Amino acid sequence: MNACLFCDIAAGTKPAHVVLETPEVMAFLDIRPVFHGHCLLIPRVHVDTLDELPDPLIEPLFTEARRLSRAVRTALGAAGTFVAMNNRVSQSVPHLHVHVVPRRPKDGLRGFFWPRVKYGSEAQMADFRDRIREAVDGR
Amino acid sequence: MNACLFCDIAAGTKPAHVVLETPEVMAFLDIRPVFHGHCLLIPRVHVDTLDELPDPLIEPLFTEARRLSRAVRTALGAAGTFVAMNNRVSQSVPHLHVHVVPRRPKDGLRGFFWPRVKYGSEAQMADFRDRIREAVDGR
Repeated sequence: MNACLFCDIAAGTKPAHVVLETPEVMAFLDIRPVFHGHCLLIPRVHVDTLDELPDPLIEPLFTEARRLSRAVRTALGAAGTFVAMNNRVSQSVPHLHVHVVPRRPKDGLRGFFWPRVKYGSEAQMADFRDRIREAVDGR
Repeated sequence: MNACLFCDIAAGTKPAHVVLETPEVMAFLDIRPVFHGHCLLIPRVHVDTLDELPDPLIEPLFTEARRLSRAVRTALGAAGTFVAMNNRVSQSVPHLHVHVVPRRPKDGLRGFFWPRVKYGSEAQMADFRDRIREAVDGR
């Protein structure tokens, strides 16, 4: 047993309803789904969040995220999908997992139904842009 | 001008507060942010949703999603990030975009605060697993 539930699932020492397996990743049903068919896709190795995902796992993980999104949609006759990662905040298990949730119009789940905010001024918006841009560039 | 707002931004014919540019992708501030610093990352070429993302763009897009998640967190002193895609349903602009939103504890945004549902039985859960697994395998 590991300290991490998803490492145990990856190791096969905890049961799960597995829907997808590759050498690098696996996916299984969330036991507390937003909607039936809600899946979680994980790298088999322990990675805390997207920010720590090693380069060699980016293509394997997101190729399978695309495959799982297509599969959830076609298998369940859904109109679309919601694909999301909570990194640290709101992350229930601290092992990177990509939520793939089937969506239908008027299903009661609005992808972003939180109140949106505004920028107080063009200068404020430019300030946020510059701060993020500098971090992107590693300055 | 294109029919697509994000194609116009990629072409430089519509303005945006750009934070990241590579040959394949770019990112800019959402003008109606969930929180200040909320960014949208897009492929420059028109792709409707994740399901249609071409193989050669998977690594470029999600490598930059990781870079942007790290940058938003460090630039804004955030504790974490929310990284999400709405595919068709709840998708405001039909050009694939990855939301990257800074998160803080008790910021009022719970990543999944919708009521969760349950499976009625083990058999129902196994049925969902099998349907998705078959679609994953292309059967």
